[in-house]
Amino acid sequence: MGTGHHSMNSLIQRKRDGGTLTGDELKWIIAGYTDNTIPDYQMSAFLMAVFLNGFSAAELSPWTEAMLHSGDVLDFSHIGRPKVDKHSTGGVGDKISIPLAPMVAACGLAVPMMSGRGLGHTGGTLDKLESIPGFRVELDPNEFTSILERLGLVLAGQSLTLVPADRRIYALRDATGTVESIPLISSSIMSKKLAEDIDGLVLDVKVGSGAFMKDLDRARELARTMVGIGAAHNTRVSAILTDMDQPLGVEIGNANELQESIDVLRGGGPSDVVELTYRLGVEMLLLGGITDDPTDARARLERVVDNGAALELFGAVIEAQDGDPRVLEDRSILDRAPLRHEIRADRDGVVRRCDALELGVASVRLGGGREQKEDIVDAGVGITLAAKRGDRVSSGDVLATISYRDEARLAAAMPYLDRAWDIHDEPVDDVPLVIDEVR
Amino acid sequence: MGTGHHSMNSLIQRKRDGGTLTGDELKWIIAGYTDNTIPDYQMSAFLMAVFLNGFSAAELSPWTEAMLHSGDVLDFSHIGRPKVDKHSTGGVGDKISIPLAPMVAACGLAVPMMSGRGLGHTGGTLDKLESIPGFRVELDPNEFTSILERLGLVLAGQSLTLVPADRRIYALRDATGTVESIPLISSSIMSKKLAEDIDGLVLDVKVGSGAFMKDLDRARELARTMVGIGAAHNTRVSAILTDMDQPLGVEIGNANELQESIDVLRGGGPSDVVELTYRLGVEMLLLGGITDDPTDARARLERVVDNGAALELFGAVIEAQDGDPRVLEDRSILDRAPLRHEIRADRDGVVRRCDALELGVASVRLGGGREQKEDIVDAGVGITLAAKRGDRVSSGDVLATISYRDEARLAAAMPYLDRAWDIHDEPVDDVPLVIDEVR
Repeated sequence: MGTGHHSMNSLIQRKRDGGTLTGDELKWIIAGYTDNTIPDYQMSAFLMAVFLNGFSAAELSPWTEAMLHSGDVLDFSHIGRPKVDKHSTGGVGDKISIPLAPMVAACGLAVPMMSGRGLGHTGGTLDKLESIPGFRVELDPNEFTSILERLGLVLAGQSLTLVPADRRIYALRDATGTVESIPLISSSIMSKKLAEDIDGLVLDVKVGSGAFMKDLDRARELARTMVGIGAAHNTRVSAILTDMDQPLGVEIGNANELQESIDVLRGGGPSDVVELTYRLGVEMLLLGGITDDPTDARARLERVVDNGAALELFGAVIEAQDGDPRVLEDRSILDRAPLRHEIRADRDGVVRRCDALELGVASVRLGGGREQKEDIVDAGVGITLAAKRGDRVSSGDVLATISYRDEARLAAAMPYLDRAWDIHDEPVDDVPLVIDEVR
Repeated sequence: MGTGHHSMNSLIQRKRDGGTLTGDELKWIIAGYTDNTIPDYQMSAFLMAVFLNGFSAAELSPWTEAMLHSGDVLDFSHIGRPKVDKHSTGGVGDKISIPLAPMVAACGLAVPMMSGRGLGHTGGTLDKLESIPGFRVELDPNEFTSILERLGLVLAGQSLTLVPADRRIYALRDATGTVESIPLISSSIMSKKLAEDIDGLVLDVKVGSGAFMKDLDRARELARTMVGIGAAHNTRVSAILTDMDQPLGVEIGNANELQESIDVLRGGGPSDVVELTYRLGVEMLLLGGITDDPTDARARLERVVDNGAALELFGAVIEAQDGDPRVLEDRSILDRAPLRHEIRADRDGVVRRCDALELGVASVRLGGGREQKEDIVDAGVGITLAAKRGDRVSSGDVLATISYRDEARLAAAMPYLDRAWDIHDEPVDDVPLVIDEVR
């Protein structure tokens, strides 16, 4: 098993016993797995040993580098502007990328944004963008580069030729109980982002019921680990830890969330979505060197919203990617499921909990996400929240309106919807949206 | 991935997180792996989780039962005599099974002995038996049973239809760094032995440089674990922990060791081999209910050696398995490599170390074991020790005589032979051969 001067079996044993592998050995493993000289059964045993014994920072950096170099690596050195991207670890109602990317690009940065699809109970930027009629997220590398060159912004899926090792390792982890590992999550995210040849990256690390990290300490460790990988790669990375106990904004669902994103680009939108979009945007302008003053950065972002430059740029990207740009003016061209159901408060009081996980699962059950990989997402279903944490309600008030297409799917979502709110007599403490930052 | 009401992925996760699996779940895993619905890559991740987080006694028993029932299980209930077997965890110069089995069977027990081949630096009973010209260790189940019925003794390899799960799991462990796990070793050994339908089992658990367990605490834990599995299966199991820092006896090598075994059956042989053979034999007679008095048991074993009954029985088994029984009288029909080399002391003093591991590896390098699975063992090469721990030697005295066939192989063995002895001025403390016992 294994070729060359290393033996996979002995490397597995070393990691199993809590030892450290050299960069050379880690690169050999990734290369061997990519070229099929190391079989799945050795890799899965190794990943379990990593899950249980971890990677040191000195191991994580070459491991990530090796993944990053397992396929094509983009070269945007000919693009004059600094290139920045943003990644969220995933949540419910998290449409931030959609208003954020045009705002930042309109301020002079290049944003080669590669996003993902919904995973589990969380939504995905690609699914939301595809609610725009005609919009194509699968671009070939030449298209991707030429749109980026022309507009400074492109919104697409990950190219299949980028980081093939991650795709295979992720599928293996998904079947072998080795997903929830900070070094493995970090290297998976960072290898894909660093393959985009970016100068700066801002990470939105979600914490709470609707996040993959339920626990603040683990989320902070994940953030620190990813920032460390960036530093080792000479890429500036900032991480913001944000609350995901309740959904972001008031809209959950693909077309719903696209509309809410447009609202933000038009200067509206719910305050939490606006706050987080600006906060991440400021971070990106600082990382990209547009300014070194956060106040100035914020003013620049406000300006491109106020003067319509960000919205116009989003329209240009939609056109470039074959979407219908009338979506910016006309909500009716977005799909919307025909039926409505209202969830109502069963008592007077203050909302203490509006649970992101329950609402995320409910949205998937309605058809807004995938229960199995091959499922087709229904862009028109969704949940519009009327009461979130801290809101005072009376018995009978509407907590949310459900847009649905199918009674059976609504019935499947109801148990989650019924459990999503807690209403109590006492007022609740304010929970900050931005919990911490790691640089 | 996985079928039925369990999910392999979630069972892997539970074991990974230190949880406990039910007997039903463990049996489902063995069944799924045996019928290929659980792939190697899930099993190897599970085995690594077991390696690092262990099995409780409540898990180990159903896991072993499931392995044991993965193929045929022998039924010797029609054989009137109590059936006992012995297993050694493997060492250097360990030929004990060969004199032991005929002695015990000659005392009235049935011994359906299934042995293994050399593994790594350790020798194997089957390889030693095959040094007898014509001797067949691969018997079909009917032959095995009929020889056992007729003689009360049969000496063979493991049938391929017994415990197929162990064969596959062992091969997977061997490639994925999951060999040295007490629960996995215990279940592998015990599933094979319990499939022999025995009433009692004595385990010789080796400790020291030439053993797989270098450490007394680990060896004791292994012994306790195997005795526990036996108890859960209602089979009487005793374990003896014995020293394997130096080889057993003075002969290492297949024909060499066969001859030393015959010496013991004739009432001779080195004192350590004789002591251990009788000790294990007493244990087997007690387990098999021949007597409940150790002194009486020892006297019975001495009687069948003194009156030639044990030797005669060994001859009958050799004939039944197509070997040449003249081997009992005539050493010259055993192969012996033609060339000799003497290892000599380079100083005066007392032997403090005569290292089992170095000598075991040297014997493999000479051709007496396999460096790769497909290698053919040379029965005629070997090492005859002239000085062991505690012996006083003068500079130039012979420490060992090497029988070899090939100068290149001798050269490959020399570094190990040169390192095998330590000679010091001070006398050494006596190290007991039998260190502990576990019942």
